[in-house]
Amino acid sequence: MSDFQVEVRVVPREGILDPQGKAVAGALKSLGFAGVDHVHVGRLVTLSLSAASPEDAADAAVAMCRQLLANPVTEDFDVRILEAAGS
Amino acid sequence: MSDFQVEVRVVPREGILDPQGKAVAGALKSLGFAGVDHVHVGRLVTLSLSAASPEDAADAAVAMCRQLLANPVTEDFDVRILEAAGS
Repeated sequence: MSDFQVEVRVVPREGILDPQGKAVAGALKSLGFAGVDHVHVGRLVTLSLSAASPEDAADAAVAMCRQLLANPVTEDFDVRILEAAGS
Repeated sequence: MSDFQVEVRVVPREGILDPQGKAVAGALKSLGFAGVDHVHVGRLVTLSLSAASPEDAADAAVAMCRQLLANPVTEDFDVRILEAAGS
């Protein structure tokens, strides 16, 4: 078993209303930032995970997204296995 | 002027209590995921930005973090300029 550093990116699904992104875009414009567009706010979940292989770590992380980390109706997720650290 | 794709990662500062990370770690354990540790939940802000150069885009993004996107007391941020698209 190795420890894997896992990064999960959860983002609003393309085409679904993103009120938080719209709010941030409006606030940035109010603060004087010009030329800003397509603002989206998602979540970045990092964790360490003990698994037998990078593939097992990725499978576990995808299961975590399906069961807890992402809203399957409105969000997309992307799992990245960054590194293994020791045994 | 070019359009740059900017990715801002906002994460809880190391050593500061991260209640959302702790809650997610507890929920993952309750769901039966073993070997999970060091769970942290941050924000991932993506936007497109019109700027004269990648350096200008990065400077603007850092200013956005200081003024709006990150809490300077409890959070760290990291700005990545991903690509330029057209003029």
